[in-house]
Amino acid sequence: MSNSYYADYKKGDVEFVRTGYGKDVVKVLTIRREGKHHYIKEIETNIQLTLKTLKEYLLGDNSDIIPTDTIKNTIHALAKLKGIRTIEEFALDICDHFLTSFQHVSRAMVYMEEVPWKRLEKGGIGHVHAFIHNHEATHFCEVEQMQNEPPVVHAGLKNMKVLKSTQSGFEGFRKDRFTTLPEVRDRVFSTIVYAKWRYSTPRHTNFDAAWNSVKDSIIESFAGPYGTGIYSPSAQNTLFKAQCLSLSRVPEMEEIEIIMPNKHYFTIDLTKFGIHQNNEVLLPLDNPSGSITGTLRRRPVSKL
Amino acid sequence: MSNSYYADYKKGDVEFVRTGYGKDVVKVLTIRREGKHHYIKEIETNIQLTLKTLKEYLLGDNSDIIPTDTIKNTIHALAKLKGIRTIEEFALDICDHFLTSFQHVSRAMVYMEEVPWKRLEKGGIGHVHAFIHNHEATHFCEVEQMQNEPPVVHAGLKNMKVLKSTQSGFEGFRKDRFTTLPEVRDRVFSTIVYAKWRYSTPRHTNFDAAWNSVKDSIIESFAGPYGTGIYSPSAQNTLFKAQCLSLSRVPEMEEIEIIMPNKHYFTIDLTKFGIHQNNEVLLPLDNPSGSITGTLRRRPVSKL
Amino acid sequence: MSNSYYADYKKGDVEFVRTGYGKDVVKVLTIRREGKHHYIKEIETNIQLTLKTLKEYLLGDNSDIIPTDTIKNTIHALAKLKGIRTIEEFALDICDHFLTSFQHVSRAMVYMEEVPWKRLEKGGIGHVHAFIHNHEATHFCEVEQMQNEPPVVHAGLKNMKVLKSTQSGFEGFRKDRFTTLPEVRDRVFSTIVYAKWRYSTPRHTNFDAAWNSVKDSIIESFAGPYGTGIYSPSAQNTLFKAQCLSLSRVPEMEEIEIIMPNKHYFTIDLTKFGIHQNNEVLLPLDNPSGSITGTLRRRPVSKL
Amino acid sequence: MSNSYYADYKKGDVEFVRTGYGKDVVKVLTIRREGKHHYIKEIETNIQLTLKTLKEYLLGDNSDIIPTDTIKNTIHALAKLKGIRTIEEFALDICDHFLTSFQHVSRAMVYMEEVPWKRLEKGGIGHVHAFIHNHEATHFCEVEQMQNEPPVVHAGLKNMKVLKSTQSGFEGFRKDRFTTLPEVRDRVFSTIVYAKWRYSTPRHTNFDAAWNSVKDSIIESFAGPYGTGIYSPSAQNTLFKAQCLSLSRVPEMEEIEIIMPNKHYFTIDLTKFGIHQNNEVLLPLDNPSGSITGTLRRRPVSKL
Repeated sequence: MSNSYYADYKKGDVEFVRTGYGKDVVKVLTIRREGKHHYIKEIETNIQLTLKTLKEYLLGDNSDIIPTDTIKNTIHALAKLKGIRTIEEFALDICDHFLTSFQHVSRAMVYMEEVPWKRLEKGGIGHVHAFIHNHEATHFCEVEQMQNEPPVVHAGLKNMKVLKSTQSGFEGFRKDRFTTLPEVRDRVFSTIVYAKWRYSTPRHTNFDAAWNSVKDSIIESFAGPYGTGIYSPSAQNTLFKAQCLSLSRVPEMEEIEIIMPNKHYFTIDLTKFGIHQNNEVLLPLDNPSGSITGTLRRRPVSKL
Repeated sequence: MSNSYYADYKKGDVEFVRTGYGKDVVKVLTIRREGKHHYIKEIETNIQLTLKTLKEYLLGDNSDIIPTDTIKNTIHALAKLKGIRTIEEFALDICDHFLTSFQHVSRAMVYMEEVPWKRLEKGGIGHVHAFIHNHEATHFCEVEQMQNEPPVVHAGLKNMKVLKSTQSGFEGFRKDRFTTLPEVRDRVFSTIVYAKWRYSTPRHTNFDAAWNSVKDSIIESFAGPYGTGIYSPSAQNTLFKAQCLSLSRVPEMEEIEIIMPNKHYFTIDLTKFGIHQNNEVLLPLDNPSGSITGTLRRRPVSKL
Repeated sequence: MSNSYYADYKKGDVEFVRTGYGKDVVKVLTIRREGKHHYIKEIETNIQLTLKTLKEYLLGDNSDIIPTDTIKNTIHALAKLKGIRTIEEFALDICDHFLTSFQHVSRAMVYMEEVPWKRLEKGGIGHVHAFIHNHEATHFCEVEQMQNEPPVVHAGLKNMKVLKSTQSGFEGFRKDRFTTLPEVRDRVFSTIVYAKWRYSTPRHTNFDAAWNSVKDSIIESFAGPYGTGIYSPSAQNTLFKAQCLSLSRVPEMEEIEIIMPNKHYFTIDLTKFGIHQNNEVLLPLDNPSGSITGTLRRRPVSKL
Repeated sequence: MSNSYYADYKKGDVEFVRTGYGKDVVKVLTIRREGKHHYIKEIETNIQLTLKTLKEYLLGDNSDIIPTDTIKNTIHALAKLKGIRTIEEFALDICDHFLTSFQHVSRAMVYMEEVPWKRLEKGGIGHVHAFIHNHEATHFCEVEQMQNEPPVVHAGLKNMKVLKSTQSGFEGFRKDRFTTLPEVRDRVFSTIVYAKWRYSTPRHTNFDAAWNSVKDSIIESFAGPYGTGIYSPSAQNTLFKAQCLSLSRVPEMEEIEIIMPNKHYFTIDLTKFGIHQNNEVLLPLDNPSGSITGTLRRRPVSKL
């Protein structure tokens, strides 16, 4: 059976567009000890390699395959040999290892997330070795590198839920026969931010500082000044402002994609119960949600 | 068909042990406005009522049923009429409403969770109306009340993940032919705490203060002093200490159950790769996990 | 610190109500080979033991602890030594092992689920060794046994979603100021059935046959005759009928609890778009859902 | 603030690479009645539109926005006006509607899944209106269409779990210092298949028949003949064979991507308990899993 498939392939009837294999959900915790003070990083990563050959697919010849079990072992070993300073640097180290060690690997791709462990603190004092899982946003990155080429580094944040109880409206939109949405100048605006951006100069970036700067920029664009807020005429416009602010604050950023689902909260009509309405009780909707997206980049020409 | 079932029931061949119905996953967001300053509470609740009659089950006679849709509407209306100060007080209000309004309701049971919205803050200044979802532990409560009886109030926290990278061991345990676990004096200890406790004087408790006090007590028992930590000889012993500390700090607490799964982190053996071992790279296991439980109470007699 | 806690306990200020520990989410696949024909069982189980002593909690003295790692190993070994015929029998074997091997274990409790692997079939012929994951309902069981007592065996099914597009209504219910639900004689009825029952004679029951009989009884009570269906005046009444039919078909069953959430489908009003309405387009609601429960048992006295 | 962002944009410092917005997780159930016989389809869909203008992002000018609420309403209305024969046809109808009704929409993209309701059956007789949720694989599709261009239609299946208990091995792979995996000629092979393919002639395809044909082809390639099975030397080779068989059976298919995670089952070593080993008790691993991917297409030139 294998032979006949290969025959079809050799005749040129079919061809591979892409191949790749690797290991998903490899987990590691590293502990760095400086005397009594411990520092931890826990990560979860997926890695995929593409080989120059196809014989493992076409012929069942495994001689070029780096087993996914070996890939897992390598990540464990590199965690010790290289250490995990930032997820971006560790992902770069992993790509570098596979492309350097194996000439028949044409491409390495690493996705990595960091578990949000936070040192226990009281009155500004940190605990020497105890941590709590504190989640506001998940920090992830994606590094892709082709053999003999520089790496392409994306970083991102996801699952950052924010809500403002005013300073948001939606008016002046197009109507057709299926439009029933009323115009509104004061509504709750809540979203679960996903953002992913590309760095132009990956090896000279302070990745954690840049990530925090993007996180702050998105929050500020959403929330506005602390004493007054800022009016959002649409998720689209707020998304654009968050992108502009991020690009202005992080010079190493070349391009940024943001997805802002609109998690709706509907005012519950209490007048049907004879209760005076004041827009104080709202219904959180799980679905459907609006989904607003956009990718903005620095214009390449104007930088030269 | 209905008739014959009812005939069996009337003959006394079968009997109901329990009945109850209600609405699950009712969600509400409330906004309280004091000038420009907004205060929000978002909750998710399940409510179950038990009626004194059985004819809706036995005969399909719905005349005593309070529709679950009405239950949902009632929660929405009470959110406005009573407000949500704490989830415990709102759950008490809901029970009270149904038992007072309907004499044929023999029991009301409310489970409620609070969504962990946190006001945005910078340099100690809070934003007037913008919030971020910040999760360390989920605050929940459970209120049960029988007609003409006082309510029984439980509060709890769940999904609080903590980890310490030392000051934990496990030695001196029993061995049999299936035991392969080595004794160890220095290991990572990580758990996802679930705690649920009962209040003796529900109407005079500062519920949010008590909840924070229990959260702190569990963290302190787990982590120990910030400069040194405290040795845990077993999850069982740490659990008991967390219970004792909670009971000593919260006098309104009568009884406390804690569940501490043991989320294992195994040291990865790197010596097989020729790498000098120093217990710095560990493997987080998703499953199986140990599960350690215990319920401790104040001894009723000795308190009188 | 440990000593002072223990002092409080010895003074009698506090006492344990319950303790127990074990291993959660232990997974096993077994393969039985009869020539070329392979038979598989994959299970997932939680086990909890209660000891007669408390010194592991009070004093950090581990000498009576059977490590949860040993518990896991024991389940793996028993899967080979005893085999897995049904999950109920395997859970019974596990309880028996721990209570027999360790006199200081006062209670063993096992929860077990079976993964729904189904042999590949074509034209009535089964594949010798290939299987597909086919889910209609999850089969689970719970066995609890005290030292020197007979085991208590519960079996159950969960996550069985069914839907009928007619022959359901809800009328004649009680109204108050918060009632807005219209009466309806023809609606969609959809539920995700949870059922759990107790066997009176665990050692002489054909567990898989009984489980299938309960599953069929619930489906028949819900759906009615294939050519006409059966009218459901309420989830409560359908639940009662399903219990009666199950008890009548499975004589080993003593008591049965059923939970039938009401997964609502609302007719979408298309007349606002100028579209003639015929109740053909409905909106599935994720939440809230009604939740209808009941536990029915054979009356003990009247059977004697 | 908005003005200054727009100024930057006008200066040409930044530019949009992509924009798009829509509604996620829109759910619909349709009922078609032919006398007593009812036919149902339940779907879940995401839709995204891209506009020719950017002023909603740049200026907060909403005059071109088709509200996501209108998008949801439109899907509800089209479910009635067009009906849902197959998810692919309904997704095509939705794209067509938006591109035809609005000249300023440059692109429409629809992702849709079908809920696997199966008519209740006994002895070959189907119930007139009752259904059970039966899952073996999820059927999804993705339709993308640009203004004035033909639609691009992908269909797919996901979450199809299969397992074979023999006829799989992995040998002859490359070794390095991090390799510890032993070669093996007889192992369990289990995977959760994801497949997605493109149709060349979307308007003349019997979508449900084609989907079933792909599902069968993948299962056959994995399982082999029912009496003997077929040896898999690697997931890569089995994936390639499944692609070739699918392309040979479904002439409308142009290209097919398959992802086959390798869900590992490890033989548990029972010899340490003094138990004779026969590879009968295995440990299912949740993670990490291997992930094998490939995209194969008909060679465009050789077909002309």
